[in-house]
Amino acid sequence: MRAAPTPLPSMLIEPVVREALREDLGRAGDITTAAVVPAEHADTFVLAAREEGVLAGVDAARLVFVLLDPGVGFTAYRQDGDRLHPGERIAQVSGPTRALLSGERVALNLLGHLSGIATATAGIADAIAHTSARVCCTRKTTPGLRGLEKYAVRCGGGVNHRWGLDDAVLIKDNHIAVAGSVTEAVRRARETAGHLVAIEVEVDSLEQLHELLASPVDAVLLDNMGPATTAEAVRRVGGAMTVEASGRVTAATAPALAEAGVDLISAGWITHSAPTLDIGLDAE
Amino acid sequence: MRAAPTPLPSMLIEPVVREALREDLGRAGDITTAAVVPAEHADTFVLAAREEGVLAGVDAARLVFVLLDPGVGFTAYRQDGDRLHPGERIAQVSGPTRALLSGERVALNLLGHLSGIATATAGIADAIAHTSARVCCTRKTTPGLRGLEKYAVRCGGGVNHRWGLDDAVLIKDNHIAVAGSVTEAVRRARETAGHLVAIEVEVDSLEQLHELLASPVDAVLLDNMGPATTAEAVRRVGGAMTVEASGRVTAATAPALAEAGVDLISAGWITHSAPTLDIGLDAE
Amino acid sequence: MRAAPTPLPSMLIEPVVREALREDLGRAGDITTAAVVPAEHADTFVLAAREEGVLAGVDAARLVFVLLDPGVGFTAYRQDGDRLHPGERIAQVSGPTRALLSGERVALNLLGHLSGIATATAGIADAIAHTSARVCCTRKTTPGLRGLEKYAVRCGGGVNHRWGLDDAVLIKDNHIAVAGSVTEAVRRARETAGHLVAIEVEVDSLEQLHELLASPVDAVLLDNMGPATTAEAVRRVGGAMTVEASGRVTAATAPALAEAGVDLISAGWITHSAPTLDIGLDAE
Amino acid sequence: MRAAPTPLPSMLIEPVVREALREDLGRAGDITTAAVVPAEHADTFVLAAREEGVLAGVDAARLVFVLLDPGVGFTAYRQDGDRLHPGERIAQVSGPTRALLSGERVALNLLGHLSGIATATAGIADAIAHTSARVCCTRKTTPGLRGLEKYAVRCGGGVNHRWGLDDAVLIKDNHIAVAGSVTEAVRRARETAGHLVAIEVEVDSLEQLHELLASPVDAVLLDNMGPATTAEAVRRVGGAMTVEASGRVTAATAPALAEAGVDLISAGWITHSAPTLDIGLDAE
Amino acid sequence: MRAAPTPLPSMLIEPVVREALREDLGRAGDITTAAVVPAEHADTFVLAAREEGVLAGVDAARLVFVLLDPGVGFTAYRQDGDRLHPGERIAQVSGPTRALLSGERVALNLLGHLSGIATATAGIADAIAHTSARVCCTRKTTPGLRGLEKYAVRCGGGVNHRWGLDDAVLIKDNHIAVAGSVTEAVRRARETAGHLVAIEVEVDSLEQLHELLASPVDAVLLDNMGPATTAEAVRRVGGAMTVEASGRVTAATAPALAEAGVDLISAGWITHSAPTLDIGLDAE
Amino acid sequence: MRAAPTPLPSMLIEPVVREALREDLGRAGDITTAAVVPAEHADTFVLAAREEGVLAGVDAARLVFVLLDPGVGFTAYRQDGDRLHPGERIAQVSGPTRALLSGERVALNLLGHLSGIATATAGIADAIAHTSARVCCTRKTTPGLRGLEKYAVRCGGGVNHRWGLDDAVLIKDNHIAVAGSVTEAVRRARETAGHLVAIEVEVDSLEQLHELLASPVDAVLLDNMGPATTAEAVRRVGGAMTVEASGRVTAATAPALAEAGVDLISAGWITHSAPTLDIGLDAE
Repeated sequence: MRAAPTPLPSMLIEPVVREALREDLGRAGDITTAAVVPAEHADTFVLAAREEGVLAGVDAARLVFVLLDPGVGFTAYRQDGDRLHPGERIAQVSGPTRALLSGERVALNLLGHLSGIATATAGIADAIAHTSARVCCTRKTTPGLRGLEKYAVRCGGGVNHRWGLDDAVLIKDNHIAVAGSVTEAVRRARETAGHLVAIEVEVDSLEQLHELLASPVDAVLLDNMGPATTAEAVRRVGGAMTVEASGRVTAATAPALAEAGVDLISAGWITHSAPTLDIGLDAE
Repeated sequence: MRAAPTPLPSMLIEPVVREALREDLGRAGDITTAAVVPAEHADTFVLAAREEGVLAGVDAARLVFVLLDPGVGFTAYRQDGDRLHPGERIAQVSGPTRALLSGERVALNLLGHLSGIATATAGIADAIAHTSARVCCTRKTTPGLRGLEKYAVRCGGGVNHRWGLDDAVLIKDNHIAVAGSVTEAVRRARETAGHLVAIEVEVDSLEQLHELLASPVDAVLLDNMGPATTAEAVRRVGGAMTVEASGRVTAATAPALAEAGVDLISAGWITHSAPTLDIGLDAE
Repeated sequence: MRAAPTPLPSMLIEPVVREALREDLGRAGDITTAAVVPAEHADTFVLAAREEGVLAGVDAARLVFVLLDPGVGFTAYRQDGDRLHPGERIAQVSGPTRALLSGERVALNLLGHLSGIATATAGIADAIAHTSARVCCTRKTTPGLRGLEKYAVRCGGGVNHRWGLDDAVLIKDNHIAVAGSVTEAVRRARETAGHLVAIEVEVDSLEQLHELLASPVDAVLLDNMGPATTAEAVRRVGGAMTVEASGRVTAATAPALAEAGVDLISAGWITHSAPTLDIGLDAE
Repeated sequence: MRAAPTPLPSMLIEPVVREALREDLGRAGDITTAAVVPAEHADTFVLAAREEGVLAGVDAARLVFVLLDPGVGFTAYRQDGDRLHPGERIAQVSGPTRALLSGERVALNLLGHLSGIATATAGIADAIAHTSARVCCTRKTTPGLRGLEKYAVRCGGGVNHRWGLDDAVLIKDNHIAVAGSVTEAVRRARETAGHLVAIEVEVDSLEQLHELLASPVDAVLLDNMGPATTAEAVRRVGGAMTVEASGRVTAATAPALAEAGVDLISAGWITHSAPTLDIGLDAE
Repeated sequence: MRAAPTPLPSMLIEPVVREALREDLGRAGDITTAAVVPAEHADTFVLAAREEGVLAGVDAARLVFVLLDPGVGFTAYRQDGDRLHPGERIAQVSGPTRALLSGERVALNLLGHLSGIATATAGIADAIAHTSARVCCTRKTTPGLRGLEKYAVRCGGGVNHRWGLDDAVLIKDNHIAVAGSVTEAVRRARETAGHLVAIEVEVDSLEQLHELLASPVDAVLLDNMGPATTAEAVRRVGGAMTVEASGRVTAATAPALAEAGVDLISAGWITHSAPTLDIGLDAE
Repeated sequence: MRAAPTPLPSMLIEPVVREALREDLGRAGDITTAAVVPAEHADTFVLAAREEGVLAGVDAARLVFVLLDPGVGFTAYRQDGDRLHPGERIAQVSGPTRALLSGERVALNLLGHLSGIATATAGIADAIAHTSARVCCTRKTTPGLRGLEKYAVRCGGGVNHRWGLDDAVLIKDNHIAVAGSVTEAVRRARETAGHLVAIEVEVDSLEQLHELLASPVDAVLLDNMGPATTAEAVRRVGGAMTVEASGRVTAATAPALAEAGVDLISAGWITHSAPTLDIGLDAE
């Protein structure tokens, strides 16, 4: 059984939720609900899955309603990382109907987006569960949502790559071109990187890997090699570095790569192109 | 030929770009590039499409590089709304290599996300081009990006639905349930809506439509009716209201709905689930 | 009896109140009160009208005190939209005297400003109550306060014009000049406006109105015509468009315009030049 | 001739202008102008006074246009503090018509509001010009605009009272009530006030003034005394403190107070209730 | 016994604390604690002094924990301004261990920094306690922390100089050079300064003081004069102005200056170079 | 010779500088300079060291002046990381005198604070230059300034520890207490840490080190061991982990630790208690 994902501090979720609400409320708020629904009307709704998937974003959804009206009650039936079945209840929200209806879309947008990412991640994670490989995200995230999206990847059973440009070194083709060689690029990075900053190098051929193995770093990224070359690369690395493989990996193509012995399979699409998970707000 | 999309003021794009850069630069900036690439190194790269699609986000991409370093030159070869073919050059960026490499990911994330939405929109727009129907977006957007995503829909040949909860009235099932009837919900909305605020009502049956026709509003949203019922609904409306149809519409199912005579076909997935368009930054 | 105004979400009021408090507290807070009033001193004060008027801003006033000290109790005796008589109690505030005195000025500034606008609006609304015309605001608002000021207009019995440049089309003389004709300007606007975006055109002569009537839009703004010409214009429109009249309208000149049959009378001064309503904070 | 007012740093004006523009542009910008005016269309307009008054806010107006489009040219013919006559040209703006029309309303809102305050201030200043008294503002300002409004007071020939609760001590009736006496309130304030923090006490009777004279502070505020009592108070103070008089002072009632010998006449209405000055943007 | 320092409103502390937390939590929060400490684990810790000093920052420390988790209990044993002895308990914090450990560093950074300033201030205050002179801070503060640092000076028994460039006039050598003379510089300042804005002039010789005494202002700053010259200056001022002395003053050199009769001794190092006070978070 | 420090992107410096300026300008700006110095007066000043030290913060100082007035010219004579001698010129600033005088204090506060940290760091770096050990910072930084302070450490020849709680795992005594053992704490951390997240464990005895060596991580922090125990610890680690030593290390005590063979010596005081470096702005 998968461990619950490392939680994200509420302080990091709130600014995103607040911005999303401002964006939707605009300058006058929900004019439909204000006109049609009396202030004193109260109701109870249920957030429920409409398709199979993995849940992510319960705290964000809760915040949407509570920020609109602290009097809303929110009871979660399921937690982030849980598998959802069609029709399954995620949480109950009850209180002033105005707050419930005004928050509905923003809550669903957040929940659907994050659960979509968790579900996409889990799709690959499940496909490679028979190996020791893990699925990993990238920096190909939606602007403004990186923290939440990387959290959703964890909810789906994936692991996180670096958070941004500043917390790990990743030497890619353009860097190598400027430095003149893998060896020189690595040398320059080592000179300034702090002792807790890991270094990874992207290689696209066994020749480049060969050069890198002369001065191994923490991790190597094998870009767009097929399973056979990947297996050979893993053999040559021989445990000296963490091995990550990438290149348009899907749940269908992941197993072959995982079986080639890599530690990590990274996929950009699980954050930038995962379809939303269909979740609805229904009358109790 | 499609008119160029209504442009988005730079003042509305810049905060999103700035936030995206902060998110990626973190607390120390691009430590790989700082270590490997000398400050005085300059280069020229080209943003190029790697697959078929419709372009959106050129101004955002330009801002990424210029905010990092005002000395970067950015020459656009194509403009938002243009069709792209694999390999087609979108823009050239030249200047300090550090700024080019540090901005690459954020620029591509923005460009790919927005062009993905434009491409998804164009897919439906093309499929219904033989009718007078237009494809339309919803409020199912990514938190923090609504303005840019709705702009991308325009780039793809779509039209925009309301911007948020405050600029138009949209009466849905829950509102009708609270009000007791379509008629009463509409009455309440009319009472407070300003003279420039349009009113739309979502109906899911011909019975509800019948009730609405007794006091028609600006637009009616036919939710999840099949083409046949939709055609009957259009006939009954008889031009008295703008007719919008929705319900998991794709490029494959849109033509039948469009041919049923509706004015608008709205689809949530073009903003919340459009896969990114593959665009790369290549050495010249 | 007038319906209670569409409420403004607390989330839209709070940033204005917070900014107003920061502006007044400066870098060290209320140094007079801190020096003179002991921390444990508590008191009860009453917000009371000192002149005739219409109330607006109770939630903003409450927030001032609660943001300064969550321990302040605030009991409203009257609600937004209520008529106030000199000496009439609006609300009671009780709790730590320091918070009460430190918040006094900001609370009164907000309450007086918004009630002033509501009162000015009501002055015109009362004058035309015998007609079906409504008084309407404009975009001539105080920078940073548009949402609150438009809400105050509703409290005074007025209705709101568009919120900004983006939620409705208003074609004015300069636009017509660039387009070459009313007809062409309207044609261009129709081409891009979404289905929920209303279009209004400002005309200053019966000739322009004549041209507009050939392709009527949602509303026409008759600028600075006298009552007689206005009546003729209303006759010609014949219900085909909402008719708005403007041009330095006061409570004295409004009736003649209203009796000419227009739907709306808009006045910029009710937001930009309404004198504050005198409200005080008195010892109980 | 009056000296030019102490200028306000651009860094303090820009956030207000930016916020005002965001408020007006909303989520999509100026949809009318974008639809009707071609991107390449350029024009020249003139900001001109439509009534008599005193100018304030030229830098704010300039910033509106330049923030929208750095390519706009702005040439000021008059400067803040100048007297304006009906029809007098204030500045010329030329460049892309879209930026000119999109910025028009925000620029006029700022310019009209600030010039209105300057004009109201000058009305009193002129009325007491034959005395040594000066007109002074209060903290009764519009939330979010205090800095700009106090600057406008200076443009109108007035002087500024304290900026907020933190930069000077002003002991009022409620403070005296808590402290038990004027003497004790002053004693407490002196104990904590820094050496550059001035102390002023508000008194509403000659008895209170008598008590204060036993331990004089920097300034005394005579609240709502008539000219005769005021004259007596001035005599008793005998130059030991700056004397400020307040109480619904207008240009009509100010001379009598000024002639009573006070140093300052403060009026809340010049900031909170000054009608806007009518300024327009006209085609050249 | 020293009076408790004028408190700083919570609204002015919270933004600093929130920013400090964001800075430390980064994009993913405390990954160590999230991994190692179960969510339900609770604990009690004690904030305790590890060396002699004066306390400042209790409210800031409390806010750190409460913002991370409103369920944390915080009981203060000592208050700002109190003398601390090694091992002395300052406050107890109890609740979810994750919040306690995640907030530890930020709380200690704030508490140590502010208490360090209070302690440095008290060092001089104690050294001159036998005189009527007070120790005073400057504008040499850490960017972003001026409000809190000036509060810490008050906690240490010092008094505050002006808050910034806008709340008092301080004429220094460069101003005098531009104006041409002390007299002319003072004349220009008087012309625009409001009646509650104090004026101070920095002089570095008895000659300059002589010139200033012809038109005395509120305060004079004697820069870098030795005790003997200072005493002579004090004699010449004869009570006509507040006298402040500055110039690398320490607890060792302060007494001689204080005994020379000045009112204030200002020292930049108490804010810009005070070493942190060692405070720890220990298991109960 | 030491390599130039990894630069900090301007986008990360600007918000700090802007906030520092706002803090000093307050609500009205530099009223002294505005009153005394004519707008058209221009001058040239020189930033110069008044004592021995290492420079850091040139870009921040430049931004101060340029943000106040884009017309200021700033020519740097020295760059960050350079040794400074008393009297040595750092940069020349020329342009409108008002901007130069208004920016002086903020520029010096930033430059002095950062150079003070660089100088403190260099003091230790120099003392251990004969060994392979490097001096390293901690998270004991000033709230709001971590990025700039860690950059200043690099300018002084030090290396950076982790940026915050999220980019590396550091297991300390409290974590070990909760987990029950070093082994279990490490096991839990490994389970969730991404492949680029380094793990460090703090131990305070050879027994704890022994336990850790059974499952070595990336780095070990020896807290408060003397040189002899440290040397023994280094021997036992035998290159299996990076070894960091901490515990009130100064330039005097660092050599013994460095000679004991550690890789890193970390010191909190170089960021939290480094005295400012005395830098002045002098007339040319």
